[in-house]
Amino acid sequence: MFMIQPVNTLSKPEFFMQLSELYRQYEDVKGKGLKLNMARGKPAASQLDLSMDMLKLPADCTLSDGTDARNYGILDGISECRQLFGELLGLNPDQIIIGGNASLNTMFDTLASLFLFGTQGHKPWSKLTYEGHKPKFLCPVPGYDRHFTMCEELGVEMIPVPLLADGPDMKTVAELAGADEDIKGIWCVPVHSNPQGVCYSDETVRALASMETAAGDFRIFWDNAYAVHHIYEEVSVLNIIEECEKAGHPDRPYFFFSTSKITFPGAGVSLISSSDANIKELKSHMKAQTIGHDKLNQLRHVQFFKTPENIRLHMKKLADELRPKFDLVLDRLDEELKGSGLLKWHTPKGGYFISVDTLPGCAKRTVQLAKEAGVTLTGAGATWPYGKDPKDSNIRIAPSFPTIGELEKAVDIFILCVKIAGMEKLLYELSVQERAVS
Amino acid sequence: MFMIQPVNTLSKPEFFMQLSELYRQYEDVKGKGLKLNMARGKPAASQLDLSMDMLKLPADCTLSDGTDARNYGILDGISECRQLFGELLGLNPDQIIIGGNASLNTMFDTLASLFLFGTQGHKPWSKLTYEGHKPKFLCPVPGYDRHFTMCEELGVEMIPVPLLADGPDMKTVAELAGADEDIKGIWCVPVHSNPQGVCYSDETVRALASMETAAGDFRIFWDNAYAVHHIYEEVSVLNIIEECEKAGHPDRPYFFFSTSKITFPGAGVSLISSSDANIKELKSHMKAQTIGHDKLNQLRHVQFFKTPENIRLHMKKLADELRPKFDLVLDRLDEELKGSGLLKWHTPKGGYFISVDTLPGCAKRTVQLAKEAGVTLTGAGATWPYGKDPKDSNIRIAPSFPTIGELEKAVDIFILCVKIAGMEKLLYELSVQERAVS
Repeated sequence: MFMIQPVNTLSKPEFFMQLSELYRQYEDVKGKGLKLNMARGKPAASQLDLSMDMLKLPADCTLSDGTDARNYGILDGISECRQLFGELLGLNPDQIIIGGNASLNTMFDTLASLFLFGTQGHKPWSKLTYEGHKPKFLCPVPGYDRHFTMCEELGVEMIPVPLLADGPDMKTVAELAGADEDIKGIWCVPVHSNPQGVCYSDETVRALASMETAAGDFRIFWDNAYAVHHIYEEVSVLNIIEECEKAGHPDRPYFFFSTSKITFPGAGVSLISSSDANIKELKSHMKAQTIGHDKLNQLRHVQFFKTPENIRLHMKKLADELRPKFDLVLDRLDEELKGSGLLKWHTPKGGYFISVDTLPGCAKRTVQLAKEAGVTLTGAGATWPYGKDPKDSNIRIAPSFPTIGELEKAVDIFILCVKIAGMEKLLYELSVQERAVS
Repeated sequence: MFMIQPVNTLSKPEFFMQLSELYRQYEDVKGKGLKLNMARGKPAASQLDLSMDMLKLPADCTLSDGTDARNYGILDGISECRQLFGELLGLNPDQIIIGGNASLNTMFDTLASLFLFGTQGHKPWSKLTYEGHKPKFLCPVPGYDRHFTMCEELGVEMIPVPLLADGPDMKTVAELAGADEDIKGIWCVPVHSNPQGVCYSDETVRALASMETAAGDFRIFWDNAYAVHHIYEEVSVLNIIEECEKAGHPDRPYFFFSTSKITFPGAGVSLISSSDANIKELKSHMKAQTIGHDKLNQLRHVQFFKTPENIRLHMKKLADELRPKFDLVLDRLDEELKGSGLLKWHTPKGGYFISVDTLPGCAKRTVQLAKEAGVTLTGAGATWPYGKDPKDSNIRIAPSFPTIGELEKAVDIFILCVKIAGMEKLLYELSVQERAVS
């Protein structure tokens, strides 16, 4: 392809010649009837293959304390599993409850529990709703669409706050949370955030832990989905539970984690961790809901990994699968769009996504063009609450699932669509200007 | 032991001699420091052994439609699994959602969903609560304590209704449900009920399906936990979903089932089935809560059983494990207590329990005596809402978990305690009478 100079410095003839050439390429691609998908953060089959031996386990179902893991019981999960993940994540095993097959479900249930029962003596949030209030959450943007879906489903009003290079814009967060008692929480993906790959600085974590909030039951939903999912660089972020305790707000954080992107999505093990008081409260509700989650799957994970070191080693292998795909996308973006003025992007250190920003007003058009050329992208707007990106510019690229060969094709089509959508936008602006002059 | 004649026909010297001998035996037993448990319906290790080969599965993770079951997706469960259980239970696979590791969780989530969102356009039940109403459920008694715990946790008021030999007392049920719009549902264990082993007659099922209810969103929670758990006799009960549809109340039933007592408790597969409209509604909420439940565990079950016939065969093997235990308990009760006037009991055709009734006011004392002699029973009152058995007479015996050897000891201690508690009661009544006369 071409176009390394800023598009808006092209002469009119150059501009139209280039756009014409892009349309020609686009018609070619459309004719190929491709079907490629960069929409969701799904592991590739080759990543899943690395966990296949786990499916022969557990070999022995007797726990270290002699309990038969095949039978009923153990509300908070087997001790071996709480130990393993506690050590991996720097959490106190006594402050961990092992959940079901995915942390999404654990997050939803925790939110639902706040609506149904409230927390630590505060009013149930459903009651607030019927008293004319509306629980609100701060949503760093761009963010994870499934967080937003949960809020929408439960009637939580979402307030976007900017996500900066070191975490949420804490000045805005502290101002809002300090002023409005209906603001009940914030979504955080503190490590390799979805989609930008932001990792929270120590200052950000401490500010979240220590800020004064108008709501006594303000909660941080700390979705540490990518805690150990490093690709280019190992990152460690401060322990939110410790920081909140130090700051005198021990009950503020709920820490979530799962093995969805470590072993098998949807057949993994999830966990929630929090203060002693919150764990006690969660268990008191949980015991009406379940006798305990799948202990055999917990044991399967424990027997497969054995130690936190083995999990880190496994993550290195997964990173080796992912790195060439991230390299490919980032290299092609560099080659084709750097300096063009048509796209900005972040280089993540880990996680599952590459977040890009088109020219304002071009994300939907880009996604639409790509779709018609056979490449499914995450819907434009998905990274914003209510699916509404006010600038219509953010797109989340998920390079993990396609093979390298598929990804090469998909990225080139994506780049082509970015160029067309961007130039169409410039063309439109030009025509508006010319009309205004004439 | 002794005492086959009705205790209340004994002469005073005979009565005291017997009671003295019972206390002597009781002291002997206490001295042995036994630790036996007949409290919960837990399968024995020998039952669980029959499913061990399942833990080597799934061997192949590709579904019949080519989908990789190891990855994200499939909200309502893999088609193979919905087919298998649909065929086993006479349900339409399109009206089935496969749930998580236990139906308890599915039931709780369904109830929670009614509180949070309501159903088919009716008000959320949490809203009713804040408007001064209280959702109420009819609870056939004796019944399953975990149903009652869910209601208590969510603030559902429980109204006990008698469970007769062919199901709930439908005259009472229809009268209550027809008169009070706050009565929102009923708990039913239609096959081998917990604890009495009652199987609902066709008349009962049709009456439940057709009765008029004051609440437009009245729901039957049809917990078919023991649908295929026959021990002495195969029982088939009418299909509640079909009957409700015929009666013009298609959205009334939620049908629950799980493999907790087929394969592994807590590592099984659960399901919910209902009308098309309810399934659609449940999925619309579920998709905020989960991307889908554990497909590999679904596939594990499918590959292990393959056909409904194999499940039935497996249940026969499980029944062969359970039958000697039920025989033992029932035989010993017959030998020691039949005609004594101290205990009544039901002979179940299947399920997991033997329900007994002591003399009024003797259940707690019996359970207490047994506990002190090293035998843990389900708490007296557990089979009633709020743990309050107004007659203090029902006790649930769970003979499945102990070995035959343990069970022999446990049953004899139980019988001893029934006798002591019963005679103490008679003694008390005698003394009250004598004081009244003097």
